[in-house]
Amino acid sequence: MTTPRALPRQAVAELVGTASLVAVVIGSGIQAAGLSQDIGVQLLANSLASAIGLGLLIALFGPVSGGHLNPVVTLSAWWARRRGGAEGPDGRAAALYIAAQVAGAVAGALLAEAMFGRMPGAWSTQVRSAGHLWLGEIVATAGLVLLILGLQRLGRDRLMPLAVAAYIAAAIWFTSSGSFANPAATVGRAFSDSFTGIAPASLPGFIAAQLVGGALGTALAAVLYGRRVREAG
Amino acid sequence: MTTPRALPRQAVAELVGTASLVAVVIGSGIQAAGLSQDIGVQLLANSLASAIGLGLLIALFGPVSGGHLNPVVTLSAWWARRRGGAEGPDGRAAALYIAAQVAGAVAGALLAEAMFGRMPGAWSTQVRSAGHLWLGEIVATAGLVLLILGLQRLGRDRLMPLAVAAYIAAAIWFTSSGSFANPAATVGRAFSDSFTGIAPASLPGFIAAQLVGGALGTALAAVLYGRRVREAG
Amino acid sequence: MTTPRALPRQAVAELVGTASLVAVVIGSGIQAAGLSQDIGVQLLANSLASAIGLGLLIALFGPVSGGHLNPVVTLSAWWARRRGGAEGPDGRAAALYIAAQVAGAVAGALLAEAMFGRMPGAWSTQVRSAGHLWLGEIVATAGLVLLILGLQRLGRDRLMPLAVAAYIAAAIWFTSSGSFANPAATVGRAFSDSFTGIAPASLPGFIAAQLVGGALGTALAAVLYGRRVREAG
Amino acid sequence: MTTPRALPRQAVAELVGTASLVAVVIGSGIQAAGLSQDIGVQLLANSLASAIGLGLLIALFGPVSGGHLNPVVTLSAWWARRRGGAEGPDGRAAALYIAAQVAGAVAGALLAEAMFGRMPGAWSTQVRSAGHLWLGEIVATAGLVLLILGLQRLGRDRLMPLAVAAYIAAAIWFTSSGSFANPAATVGRAFSDSFTGIAPASLPGFIAAQLVGGALGTALAAVLYGRRVREAG
Repeated sequence: MTTPRALPRQAVAELVGTASLVAVVIGSGIQAAGLSQDIGVQLLANSLASAIGLGLLIALFGPVSGGHLNPVVTLSAWWARRRGGAEGPDGRAAALYIAAQVAGAVAGALLAEAMFGRMPGAWSTQVRSAGHLWLGEIVATAGLVLLILGLQRLGRDRLMPLAVAAYIAAAIWFTSSGSFANPAATVGRAFSDSFTGIAPASLPGFIAAQLVGGALGTALAAVLYGRRVREAG
Repeated sequence: MTTPRALPRQAVAELVGTASLVAVVIGSGIQAAGLSQDIGVQLLANSLASAIGLGLLIALFGPVSGGHLNPVVTLSAWWARRRGGAEGPDGRAAALYIAAQVAGAVAGALLAEAMFGRMPGAWSTQVRSAGHLWLGEIVATAGLVLLILGLQRLGRDRLMPLAVAAYIAAAIWFTSSGSFANPAATVGRAFSDSFTGIAPASLPGFIAAQLVGGALGTALAAVLYGRRVREAG
Repeated sequence: MTTPRALPRQAVAELVGTASLVAVVIGSGIQAAGLSQDIGVQLLANSLASAIGLGLLIALFGPVSGGHLNPVVTLSAWWARRRGGAEGPDGRAAALYIAAQVAGAVAGALLAEAMFGRMPGAWSTQVRSAGHLWLGEIVATAGLVLLILGLQRLGRDRLMPLAVAAYIAAAIWFTSSGSFANPAATVGRAFSDSFTGIAPASLPGFIAAQLVGGALGTALAAVLYGRRVREAG
Repeated sequence: MTTPRALPRQAVAELVGTASLVAVVIGSGIQAAGLSQDIGVQLLANSLASAIGLGLLIALFGPVSGGHLNPVVTLSAWWARRRGGAEGPDGRAAALYIAAQVAGAVAGALLAEAMFGRMPGAWSTQVRSAGHLWLGEIVATAGLVLLILGLQRLGRDRLMPLAVAAYIAAAIWFTSSGSFANPAATVGRAFSDSFTGIAPASLPGFIAAQLVGGALGTALAAVLYGRRVREAG
């Protein structure tokens, strides 16, 4: 799947997919905040829409590019390839993937802003910076990576779209940080001054926590499942 | 599936199916608006009921008529047939399908009105006319068509009912326009002065945007998946 | 499945299953009405819990007794047997099923009352009697029967638990009547003066509408799918 | 699956899994109570997140340890093994499982507290002690055990993650007690003075009711399904 010839189409898939994901997250957040008086109802609608969007995008783009849509997932796949345990992108492909994801995330934020009649280009003013939020982001990302690697090593890849979607719907609720769990989407969300935004100054802390969580999830998967990958089923 | 002999039963399926779909959308909207004080809760109930209804109708009528229930889907299938890449209706069958869908949509609107003890026949007074709403409708319809064509070309037709249902539940939230994404249902919704209605004067803009979105989704599917259709699985 | 030897176990399954269904419907209604200030939120919780309960009970009791849990479903299966088109209960078995369903429904209502610390035995005072409500009940029951017969004739019985659950979740919203669609459960709900109750005087109208809906759904299924049953798959 | 060599990894899975489950339950409860003004909305979010979390954990840890995450489930499996009817843990393995579950549950509660910036270690002050609540807990646990044993004896183990998740989402609503249905999680929830907590003094009544419910569910499964286990499918 990572042969050089297919790379451009894969990069297009990662770009379009991540743009769609971020447009879904931000758009549903703007809609929900505009319609409901109750923040719980807002987050219910936003979390369900975001989860469904992610699941469908993995189903649609998984067969094209792997459907990573998330630099942590790409790095985890690259690491698995380095360890010889699984297929995954090499370093060059991983860098291209991540660039496409970040560019897509920004484009998706701008699309969501335009779709709701807002002037694209405002930075988020929502500060998200505290130790317990970073702990939340570590937990959220570790769980995501453990889920993905666990299903792969159990040979249950077909459950991936549904399982990852369900995970995100729950993680938005059980973590304190809103479960961004995706450095590219986090960057994109800095480009929208709305319900799901994050102030640019809060980016480094969140992204660092996500990378720590990704490493933790990878380690936990090795303890629980070993490094062998079974046949998909 | 489009042999002349079977056409009447197919047209009945498209008519009954689209009537049911519109009755579900409008009926659940009236119910929700009557019960909840919070517009977010209203849309949550309306979006879930509409999505489930659509998914079940595709499961039930897909094997009979393809379960289009939507002129954009019929046009997209007709176009695929013309390009030689897939089975689909010819021009005459497509016209019959669309006529059945529009007639069914109007009947479904009247049924919903009657079921809630309202006098059928009032036009909607809800104006939906603005550039950002048309952009929302383009995005909603492009995504719908990309999803359908993508799953077909990946040979995953069996996921269609669940995937399309989930898509609509999310799209109602992430687009600014309410994600009508269906010219027949849009016409039907002009026949109900309620939560989910649309004023007749707003129809041309919405329908034009849906056709643009359908063409965009078809083009995007060709870029990402090519034109070859795999075996359903 | 309807051999005389197995009948007692089947009747136990129908009794326990219908009792569980009614306890879920009434119990979740009491809980929701006690917790939320918004009737839309109450019905959202009540409809989701009821739908899930029904789906799981069909999955659990389907292989034992067919998982009818509903006299309209039993009558529809008995009719299909008479027409020679499908397996189903004979007249004596159908009568036993319906008796078990009604007894179970009443028991379930009393259990729900006890579980919430209320004195079992009060009649519902909620009048549900109007032409548009009966139309709602006809639509709800016709749709339920069409769904069940359609999936059977398409050979997709395995989707039954999920599809029927999803249908009920939506039908509670898109019909004006609350989509009882089940004469036994309707009787049981007369035994609880709570959110989901129905006054005894309203029973005849609702049950008559359900029987009409069942006949309509059976006729519609014959038009759309014919009478042949395919192999389950 | 219970060979001595694998026991440590199984115990780790039960510990990590139960910790995750309790962190999801408590964390989503804290989040929901902080965001929404409506207790119905709070419980909707909390019940959905908890159900999803449980389903994913069973999918992930089922192939490693059976994914019990619940002493009642472990005791039921141990009992099935003693009766010779099924695979299950022996007495020593069951004791280890239960110890890991309880330790994990406490750890999960402390993690949730930390993740939300609260001082871990406060006892819950929420008294849950009344006859009708114990009846609710009996019903909730009996239903859970009947579901698990029923699906196993029907050879439908693959539905387990989805079915158990759906069950819990509904049972939180249809029982009066909140459907803890898990002695280990109940202990863990005593370590959080929040929405989903339970005062330590209420533990004995709840745990006794859960054990009674587990026995009742086991007996009901024997009546309805017999003791034979079919091949998983």
